[in-house]
Amino acid sequence: MADDKRLTTREADFSAWYNEVIQRAELADYSPVRGCMVIRPYGYGIWELMQRALDDMFKATGHQNAYFPLFIPQSFITREAKHVEGFAKEMAIVTHTRLKAGANGELEPDPDSKLDEPLIVRPTSETIIYAMFAKWVQSYRDLPLLINQWANVVRWEMRTRLFLRTTEFLWQEGHTAHATENEAEEEALKMLGVYREFMDNWMAMPPLLGRKSDSERFPGAVRTYACEALMQDNRALQAGTSHMLGQNFARQFDLKFQTETGGEDYAHNTSWGVSTRLIGGLIMTHSDDDGLILPPRLAPIQVVIVPIYRKDEERALVVEKANAVAGALRNNGMRVHVDVRDHLKPGPKFYEWERKGVPVRIEIGPRDVAQGQLTVVLRTAPGDMPRKEVLGEDAALTMIPQRLDALQKQLLATAVARREANSQRGVQDYAALRERVEDAGGFIYAGWCGSADCEQKVKEDTKATIRVLPFEEFRSAEQPKLCAVCGGNATSEAVWARAY
Amino acid sequence: MADDKRLTTREADFSAWYNEVIQRAELADYSPVRGCMVIRPYGYGIWELMQRALDDMFKATGHQNAYFPLFIPQSFITREAKHVEGFAKEMAIVTHTRLKAGANGELEPDPDSKLDEPLIVRPTSETIIYAMFAKWVQSYRDLPLLINQWANVVRWEMRTRLFLRTTEFLWQEGHTAHATENEAEEEALKMLGVYREFMDNWMAMPPLLGRKSDSERFPGAVRTYACEALMQDNRALQAGTSHMLGQNFARQFDLKFQTETGGEDYAHNTSWGVSTRLIGGLIMTHSDDDGLILPPRLAPIQVVIVPIYRKDEERALVVEKANAVAGALRNNGMRVHVDVRDHLKPGPKFYEWERKGVPVRIEIGPRDVAQGQLTVVLRTAPGDMPRKEVLGEDAALTMIPQRLDALQKQLLATAVARREANSQRGVQDYAALRERVEDAGGFIYAGWCGSADCEQKVKEDTKATIRVLPFEEFRSAEQPKLCAVCGGNATSEAVWARAY
Repeated sequence: MADDKRLTTREADFSAWYNEVIQRAELADYSPVRGCMVIRPYGYGIWELMQRALDDMFKATGHQNAYFPLFIPQSFITREAKHVEGFAKEMAIVTHTRLKAGANGELEPDPDSKLDEPLIVRPTSETIIYAMFAKWVQSYRDLPLLINQWANVVRWEMRTRLFLRTTEFLWQEGHTAHATENEAEEEALKMLGVYREFMDNWMAMPPLLGRKSDSERFPGAVRTYACEALMQDNRALQAGTSHMLGQNFARQFDLKFQTETGGEDYAHNTSWGVSTRLIGGLIMTHSDDDGLILPPRLAPIQVVIVPIYRKDEERALVVEKANAVAGALRNNGMRVHVDVRDHLKPGPKFYEWERKGVPVRIEIGPRDVAQGQLTVVLRTAPGDMPRKEVLGEDAALTMIPQRLDALQKQLLATAVARREANSQRGVQDYAALRERVEDAGGFIYAGWCGSADCEQKVKEDTKATIRVLPFEEFRSAEQPKLCAVCGGNATSEAVWARAY
Repeated sequence: MADDKRLTTREADFSAWYNEVIQRAELADYSPVRGCMVIRPYGYGIWELMQRALDDMFKATGHQNAYFPLFIPQSFITREAKHVEGFAKEMAIVTHTRLKAGANGELEPDPDSKLDEPLIVRPTSETIIYAMFAKWVQSYRDLPLLINQWANVVRWEMRTRLFLRTTEFLWQEGHTAHATENEAEEEALKMLGVYREFMDNWMAMPPLLGRKSDSERFPGAVRTYACEALMQDNRALQAGTSHMLGQNFARQFDLKFQTETGGEDYAHNTSWGVSTRLIGGLIMTHSDDDGLILPPRLAPIQVVIVPIYRKDEERALVVEKANAVAGALRNNGMRVHVDVRDHLKPGPKFYEWERKGVPVRIEIGPRDVAQGQLTVVLRTAPGDMPRKEVLGEDAALTMIPQRLDALQKQLLATAVARREANSQRGVQDYAALRERVEDAGGFIYAGWCGSADCEQKVKEDTKATIRVLPFEEFRSAEQPKLCAVCGGNATSEAVWARAY
């Protein structure tokens, strides 16, 4: 695909558009290993900003990072019965530990190195982590134990999509142990709140919060809570989950402690995670037919400066000014890049940085230098912001951080408005539910009787699933009385959507 | 081992001492997976500080982070012939991708999920990374390409030791591509210099720098450079390596580019890495028979405050003061912990923080509060620093950051002095070389004829190896003329030592 070719539009083919945005912004690439992607520097830069923000929040809430083994003995996976029953069994399995030259001179796994017990590349780490917690926790004084791990995990996926579903992905997994179920419940909800704060204030991707139905619950959990975001194609993305695990894993891994009153009890666990999937959500929330759009707080480059010149003496002049402006903006805490490539004309540079979603572009030509002015162009100018302005240098330097703040807020407001516009409340009967799923999509609020059969029927008929049973603040003013599927009494309101 | 038991001394059993320091400082633990360790929060805190410092230096020298797949197709490993020949073939091999219930109801690898081509869990990533570089690099304008990856890697080790040699470990691997060999050579040396700066100024672990002999060279490299540090037991630790790979990998993975003059050439690569092994080096460089000693810049907790009280009203008073002092120190950029545990008396707290190597302890009792003073105790007080002082509060707050700076420098000076005291220069003949290895150990400087036979003989006789052919600034004033092993003409000075 030539660099100047326009992207497929969202309307024409959302999935093709998504892949093109990623490839042309150089966020990620396909690797020679089936299902595994390469996160390129620009995409990894977004992940680093996400990590820093989340890690600060985890530490502010008392968590510490640690690191546990990549490999999990096969017997650990099988120990927590519900865990293994519900969990997809598609995993990478290590069976040998040595290569040797085979008959044809090529290397092959040495049969003599076959492991007695296969090792599983972690799909998630509950089992190995709680086995370690059991060594470390003796008394109630050792609780709560609040741990987070940044790691790679592997789930052997058949159909993969960059960032959204890959065989290997990067994530964080929080794992905690508490003396009481109440405390564990509080922790699970607190961390869901941390995710929400991050998604709102950093990603500008406002999530809907709630509890998962039993069929969508994490295997081994008592309750699973989730953040669900609505993408521009009106499909839902499960963006983060937090699990109250109760004593299920503690019993299997003998995670006991001496209580304050001298008795003995199993600890109560929680686990919670978000992954590089968030980058996919970020793309599908904000980007447009010109390419990536990034909220300023997660933009590896917030301001790009493009010097414009023809002759060498002009170049010296405008590049000097560009560097001075970059220095002033950096001193003010902004991430700035000066694009001094000589083999590209300004036009292609502009398009490249737009495709990469840099929020602010400054153009500086010889006349701008002479007149002490800067041309400031926004990647996206929602609301009443002007897309392009020529400003005196001082005014521009003052205005740019304000614009970045305003843009961050405006992206969130736009995303909230879009989510609300694409939420349908008060759906009463099955025909309406079905029609809405198939026509418009979005979040569909309807009564549910609580039966897995009704849930399954909708899934089979429409591919929509219950994303969450929403928390109170998200519930409709008038709570539905009847199940939209079977017409029986509703036990709760449910939000249905087709999901990634 | 009871918490108040003294550690095995270094003199009695260095290896047992090392393990006890780690366990009792809660840096790491053995896991249920053979050869894999768990890095506990306190140890991981050190790694996070190391990562942050190194990452800042990598970025300041123009490198960007990215992420490449955990798995490498078996055929990639075999493609670079020297790479595979020299590289240990002990690797974790993934052969299946699904578990299924077997005859006895237990899970087992599903034979139907057997991979056509096994996947290797990366022992290092040259092959997969240069395969990707080949996709991204077309022209000299795309060079240099300066990438770093923070990742886990796996080498199936038979005999493991916490931090120093484990089946899985964490590291960073830098991978770069350049238009010319000169540029690649400069890069390899520049990054070795970055490692040295980090080891000197952060770890206070002064490395000896030089080039590896051919037998110790990284498989596939043209030249391997290394940082070698000397541990307290007079054994060497290879602490970081940097490789000029030439065009070896570029040829195998078709990493070509159009040159400035319109021709075509293979790129020149470098790779360089340091790992969690550095934590082992840090421990063996500074710690003593009371436990861990940490240089302040890498101490997760630089100052611990222990409030001392008997009655409840005393507790309120001293804890309030402790928090105020902690706040003042934190505002001054220090990492501070206030130990408010009520179930432990001050004595056990003191021992615990000493075992954990916290550089400065402040004790605050009711009398200290009344008199506006603080008792300041240093974990280690080299040179003329007083170990314990009672100081007015303001004086203490001014003095503590100065002490931390002085301690950082003093630890480096002490380590340099120890390294020099344990370096033997001008060793002339084989009997002297052998005696020195077997008696005192340390770095032994002697002439070498360049023959692999002489190198091998020393290794077989004494287990000492050539650590490096030292760079000029480390060479002896008088360069040896003869090989200390065979008596032939020396081609260079070599530094011999037994190594981890």
